[in-house]
Amino acid sequence: MADKALRPTSRPARVDAARLGVVALVGALLWLVPVPEGVEPRAWQLLAVFVATMVGIILRPMPMGALAFVSVSFAVLSGTLTIGEATGGFGSTVVWLVVAAFFIATAFVKTGFGTRIAYHFMRLLGKRSLGLAYGFVVTDLVLAPAIPSNTARAGGVIFPILKSLCVSLGSDAALGTQRRIAGFLTFTAYQGVVITSAMFLTAMAANPLAASLAAQQGVEISWALWAVAGFVPGVLSLLVVPALIYRLYPPEITHTPEAPALARQRLREMGPMSRDEWVLLAVFVFLLTLWILGGTLGISATATALAGVAAMLATGALAWEDILEERSGWDTFIWFAVLVMMATQLGELGLLAWFTDRVSGVLGAGHWLPSFLGLSLIYFYVHSAHVSAMYAPFLALAIAVGTPPVLAALVLAFFSNLFASMTHYGTAPAPILFGSGNVEIGDWWRLGALISVVNIVIWLGAGSLWWRLLGLW
Amino acid sequence: MADKALRPTSRPARVDAARLGVVALVGALLWLVPVPEGVEPRAWQLLAVFVATMVGIILRPMPMGALAFVSVSFAVLSGTLTIGEATGGFGSTVVWLVVAAFFIATAFVKTGFGTRIAYHFMRLLGKRSLGLAYGFVVTDLVLAPAIPSNTARAGGVIFPILKSLCVSLGSDAALGTQRRIAGFLTFTAYQGVVITSAMFLTAMAANPLAASLAAQQGVEISWALWAVAGFVPGVLSLLVVPALIYRLYPPEITHTPEAPALARQRLREMGPMSRDEWVLLAVFVFLLTLWILGGTLGISATATALAGVAAMLATGALAWEDILEERSGWDTFIWFAVLVMMATQLGELGLLAWFTDRVSGVLGAGHWLPSFLGLSLIYFYVHSAHVSAMYAPFLALAIAVGTPPVLAALVLAFFSNLFASMTHYGTAPAPILFGSGNVEIGDWWRLGALISVVNIVIWLGAGSLWWRLLGLW
Repeated sequence: MADKALRPTSRPARVDAARLGVVALVGALLWLVPVPEGVEPRAWQLLAVFVATMVGIILRPMPMGALAFVSVSFAVLSGTLTIGEATGGFGSTVVWLVVAAFFIATAFVKTGFGTRIAYHFMRLLGKRSLGLAYGFVVTDLVLAPAIPSNTARAGGVIFPILKSLCVSLGSDAALGTQRRIAGFLTFTAYQGVVITSAMFLTAMAANPLAASLAAQQGVEISWALWAVAGFVPGVLSLLVVPALIYRLYPPEITHTPEAPALARQRLREMGPMSRDEWVLLAVFVFLLTLWILGGTLGISATATALAGVAAMLATGALAWEDILEERSGWDTFIWFAVLVMMATQLGELGLLAWFTDRVSGVLGAGHWLPSFLGLSLIYFYVHSAHVSAMYAPFLALAIAVGTPPVLAALVLAFFSNLFASMTHYGTAPAPILFGSGNVEIGDWWRLGALISVVNIVIWLGAGSLWWRLLGLW
Repeated sequence: MADKALRPTSRPARVDAARLGVVALVGALLWLVPVPEGVEPRAWQLLAVFVATMVGIILRPMPMGALAFVSVSFAVLSGTLTIGEATGGFGSTVVWLVVAAFFIATAFVKTGFGTRIAYHFMRLLGKRSLGLAYGFVVTDLVLAPAIPSNTARAGGVIFPILKSLCVSLGSDAALGTQRRIAGFLTFTAYQGVVITSAMFLTAMAANPLAASLAAQQGVEISWALWAVAGFVPGVLSLLVVPALIYRLYPPEITHTPEAPALARQRLREMGPMSRDEWVLLAVFVFLLTLWILGGTLGISATATALAGVAAMLATGALAWEDILEERSGWDTFIWFAVLVMMATQLGELGLLAWFTDRVSGVLGAGHWLPSFLGLSLIYFYVHSAHVSAMYAPFLALAIAVGTPPVLAALVLAFFSNLFASMTHYGTAPAPILFGSGNVEIGDWWRLGALISVVNIVIWLGAGSLWWRLLGLW
């Protein structure tokens, strides 16, 4: 299960023709709608392709990457995009930040360094079950800045440890020994991943996309700005949420001396850090340093990430074969590049400007605060498909009603991650952790809904004060 | 062996530090040479990185893709290239023509359609050993337009059939039953692949690179022009070379009734064409049609290739998983994109123009014909690393001495493939076929050298007449 679920975008190997028909129909209908005045026909056609792609991402007639490939080919053959515009997306620096970071994530999993970190925190914090939960959350937090695949963090590093730990605690749904502690740990690990994904530009594949869509609207969000702005509300959420889950969904076992013992044993088995792990650690420090200072030094985050991968290849810490076999990386590369390209082209063809013009007239004057509050809550709760679909128009709206642009861009970007707390499919690691069977779906949704409110209160409440202090509004 | 050899660029999994040191030293020395007058410092630095990369491709301190990754990262960190220029190469249309065609090649192998074609020609032509050889060559010729991975043609389709045929003929080095017919068939298949690679823009990964380097110098070579210009000398070579090998390196068996029998049996086992094979056939016809007419209709070869892949994905003839697992495709993608990008940037930074200025003064006036003859022969015989290194300067030289540009671009592009006849490592399938052990190295080199002369005579002799007829000079 775990291994399969690690590639959630690739599961349906064949094509569902009926669903593909629906996707094509949606696209065709929109395509045939008379082009509104002030919109370039090419922009309208691209919108039709884009909306059909979004519908396809929801209906899943075929894997997302395959769908993206079909969409982009159609856009080119129909003359909606030139071939240069279409393939140009594969050369986007935003996309390569994500691809390079996927390769770095591979190194964390392959060298065992991610696992080692997790065992260290388990050894330090794992005497009590709440401490154990914090141990997983801290591991996730440490890995988040360099691993934009939250699937690699939750599915590749934390889940295998969680699983073997639950077995040794005598609590594992797969073994039929259902005890609440497995559910508590699994659900907390998931909520942790949701929060850490919001905290760094490089903690989630779609974050750089949000940043680049914001840049298109004149709002620059550097790696450092994102990390600083997300730090206070993020840490608060990471502190509050596990404690809240502990209270509302208590494990019957509170003392878990088995956990540090298991961690110590595994660390003994792993032996001292290997050369490859040292290289990775050095690269990790290098990445964090240059990502933090990059804005000041004028070094792009992508250049830093590529250099990190190159360093691991040159030292042999990462084998070229590992990169060629990084299927989820290649998968993300294709669909991500296509979505980034389409979202960018929609902006460049002036569709966004046209949309903003339209709605800003309709919106009342008044203070921006209530409008933005409403907008961001709508964004949070109707967030269905993908940041590539909703982020740009909502940001345009928020700026149109007078919200300070950087604040608007950041809040929407944070919310793009936090909304995932509610469902068992909200973000890629969800099906892995939910698939363990340790948490009932009713508990997942009920607690998830509550946590979504808690996160909103923390991020808009304490967050606002922090951002005010930072001078963002 | 075959399976491993299919990924020749990825064999050394770890890094040879000594060789990597040599590569770095070469780059550092060139970097530190005072920049010649009239050359932009950035251009000179890029040349140093580029030359070091070429040395690396020869010395192989690590797989080519890893090396390319390291080179491009160094170029960015050192300020030689901007990050946008560096990742931009991954969005080049030339690169995506090759990548898309790699995916199409996957479908030929996975659906078994390539194998079916080979058995059909074996059934038709295989009664005599010379006919058998022609059968392999014709199969290769049929597959060549849509399979730029000559490794997929020779290694994925032809080699497995050749191997099982040799076993049933009682001639297989691996089984210790060395008989000449295995050597004859293996060597002829190799020489066939060398020739077919020269015949189509899409028959070899590096051909689109040659075309794009030529375009940079103002010479447009469409898919159709390449195919028409290559047709007559290509077919002549394909007719003459197997007959010549038959004479100089005769198999002791001349009658091979086992072969058509085996082919018939295998075709029976395969049954009728599957739905996926029909889809592939339709896509194949679509590709050839649009590649031929693309120049007239204004549809780029890349758009056509992407549409072909999309059609196979949408019909399920190609699974997304097959694409994610196409490791040699991803491998080629990385190194090819980096080399294309660097070669293009060298041109854009004016290094080529500077070089041409320099040498055209030195070159005598006189008629262009002897100069070009000399140039092209030098290009053929000193061709060491890669088309990306030598093609552009040689083309610039040829044009500088007055050679009709299209003629020069085509001849050099053809020769970029034909030179490979001489060695057992000249092009990617060589190690696979040579690795069978069916041909002694001495025979390979001796006969290869002779065939190189025959090819040159045919392509420069009969080819010239044909190109004159076409009005290319």
